[in-house]
Amino acid sequence: MAKFRESDLIRQWQTRVPIPRPDTVVGIGDDAAVLEPQSGGRLLVSTDMMVENVHFSLGWMTIREVGFKAVSAAVSDIAAMGGEPRHILASVGIPASARLEDANALYDGIGEACRLYGLDMVGGDTVASPAGWVIDMVVLGLATNQVLTRGGGRPGDVVAVTGYLGGAAAGLDWLRGGGQAVVTTPDERWVLLDMHRRPLAQVEAGRILAQSGATACDDVTDGLAAELRALCQASGYGCFIESQRIPTHPAVRNYALRRGKSPVDWALFGGDDYQLVCCIPPTRFAAAQAGCMAAGVMLTVIGRVTEDPALLWRSPSGVVEELPEGGFDHFAEEGEEHGHGVG
Amino acid sequence: MAKFRESDLIRQWQTRVPIPRPDTVVGIGDDAAVLEPQSGGRLLVSTDMMVENVHFSLGWMTIREVGFKAVSAAVSDIAAMGGEPRHILASVGIPASARLEDANALYDGIGEACRLYGLDMVGGDTVASPAGWVIDMVVLGLATNQVLTRGGGRPGDVVAVTGYLGGAAAGLDWLRGGGQAVVTTPDERWVLLDMHRRPLAQVEAGRILAQSGATACDDVTDGLAAELRALCQASGYGCFIESQRIPTHPAVRNYALRRGKSPVDWALFGGDDYQLVCCIPPTRFAAAQAGCMAAGVMLTVIGRVTEDPALLWRSPSGVVEELPEGGFDHFAEEGEEHGHGVG
Repeated sequence: MAKFRESDLIRQWQTRVPIPRPDTVVGIGDDAAVLEPQSGGRLLVSTDMMVENVHFSLGWMTIREVGFKAVSAAVSDIAAMGGEPRHILASVGIPASARLEDANALYDGIGEACRLYGLDMVGGDTVASPAGWVIDMVVLGLATNQVLTRGGGRPGDVVAVTGYLGGAAAGLDWLRGGGQAVVTTPDERWVLLDMHRRPLAQVEAGRILAQSGATACDDVTDGLAAELRALCQASGYGCFIESQRIPTHPAVRNYALRRGKSPVDWALFGGDDYQLVCCIPPTRFAAAQAGCMAAGVMLTVIGRVTEDPALLWRSPSGVVEELPEGGFDHFAEEGEEHGHGVG
Repeated sequence: MAKFRESDLIRQWQTRVPIPRPDTVVGIGDDAAVLEPQSGGRLLVSTDMMVENVHFSLGWMTIREVGFKAVSAAVSDIAAMGGEPRHILASVGIPASARLEDANALYDGIGEACRLYGLDMVGGDTVASPAGWVIDMVVLGLATNQVLTRGGGRPGDVVAVTGYLGGAAAGLDWLRGGGQAVVTTPDERWVLLDMHRRPLAQVEAGRILAQSGATACDDVTDGLAAELRALCQASGYGCFIESQRIPTHPAVRNYALRRGKSPVDWALFGGDDYQLVCCIPPTRFAAAQAGCMAAGVMLTVIGRVTEDPALLWRSPSGVVEELPEGGFDHFAEEGEEHGHGVG
């Protein structure tokens, strides 16, 4: 059992995560955080749990990078609703083998992300974990615009995504040994690993989409296929996707080519990209795209919402068929996990 | 790896935890919960993580009881601030060995507690856990009265506790084999096990204390000694406690006598009782006590706040000395954990 005390760890939090906000009345260290009521908007709350050797491996990332990524993943849920993240609480299960500097490094990564997103860490819990690290992040945010739920898409809306998809899965493939199997350049490697290790939540894009009249939104946590299915299930409509429009990074395409893998598969089933997929009336799309571009974010149309509830796509071989089922499900059997059976 | 899907589990949540609230705009199932802004008060947020074989053992409790207790533990933090709990999010790490009915039983216990406390479950996360169960509960609440922090106690205030202390530790001792070592009656056994397995958060007492002018409050999670230390560290003052005034249940005293153990030790170092310990100006105590009694909660004076920052007590042997240090710290070494060294 590690030799540090919970009170010492709380002191670490307090010194490493110094983003006081005017709406924080009582922050870390009491039984509960006390916050000023949100004025002029609605309160958003989301929680996201990451478990060692399920969601991440310390063979592939440092514990500091895990801390950063855990915050991004949690903030991404607030971004997908079009909200502004404000406060975070971190519950951490620390394994017996961890040293104090490991715990400090985790908080350094959390603190770095908090500064990036303007979050005040107002609470959490630290406990011993018999197996690996367990990190549960709670993010509170404010929605001053329309709230972007999953179910608002309507037939005729375009389906669009921010940034590039499949990069996190390509980085994971590299880390799992693919990088040794083929020749890669240092800059290509950097792009792939950065996409896996340091994903950024699309907070600004989410805000712009909410302001521009997007009707529905989701973040790409479990792969594009799973998120499209979630959007269609919530709205009761279907979609038609053009596979050749799914944006993948040039470095990912190059790497996939040499690995003999499909970058579109990584985009559909890889997950962990934390980009946004949204539905927007066609008349609103140009303004949304211009807003995103001004914020340095690419917004790409990949298809449209259809009256027919089926999820169809034009596959890379040009055939119109049902979108393959898949996406990362933590409880799915191995093999089923990235399965391509027709849903 | 278990064969159930996250979407099935979310459906389980939705059917098992049916407490819609008017201030819930979007509940479980989207990226984030959307709540109406709190009016006429401040927002309270707390999180509490429980790990199998650290905080509980399925040899001693059912997974349903674990679900109930996890909610009580999280709600207790809101009670300690004098707030009203309103919404909960549950992140659950499910071990590979678990069956769907185990997960359902956990949600049944969570749902039972939500109904008791009037909580709407608005979100959470479900992930696979390589080792045992991990349950992280987030509770959101509203404070319409004064917020009870830990640091408000002033010299001359009385120190008081709700209910009985040490019962959860007595129940744990019974479960760990003590119950086989001595003769116990069925009703005594019932009291001890109930105190361990089904603790109730003192929400109503917290509200009454906040209204009655209590100056500080904490819940007894880690044993009375640790909570008194936290109150004194936060205020900068000390306290003097009369050991013979610490309220322990008659069944606990009877059992302790036959076990050759000290019920006061269980109260000081056992933890898990989820009673409240507070500081109140003497002129306000009678009204606070009457209010608690009307709500069926005993409120007992155990000492007073002192100008001198030392934590002193009159021990069971009648000697005035420093309060022994201890309390349950998840990262402390075995032996140190319930140590009686002088702080």
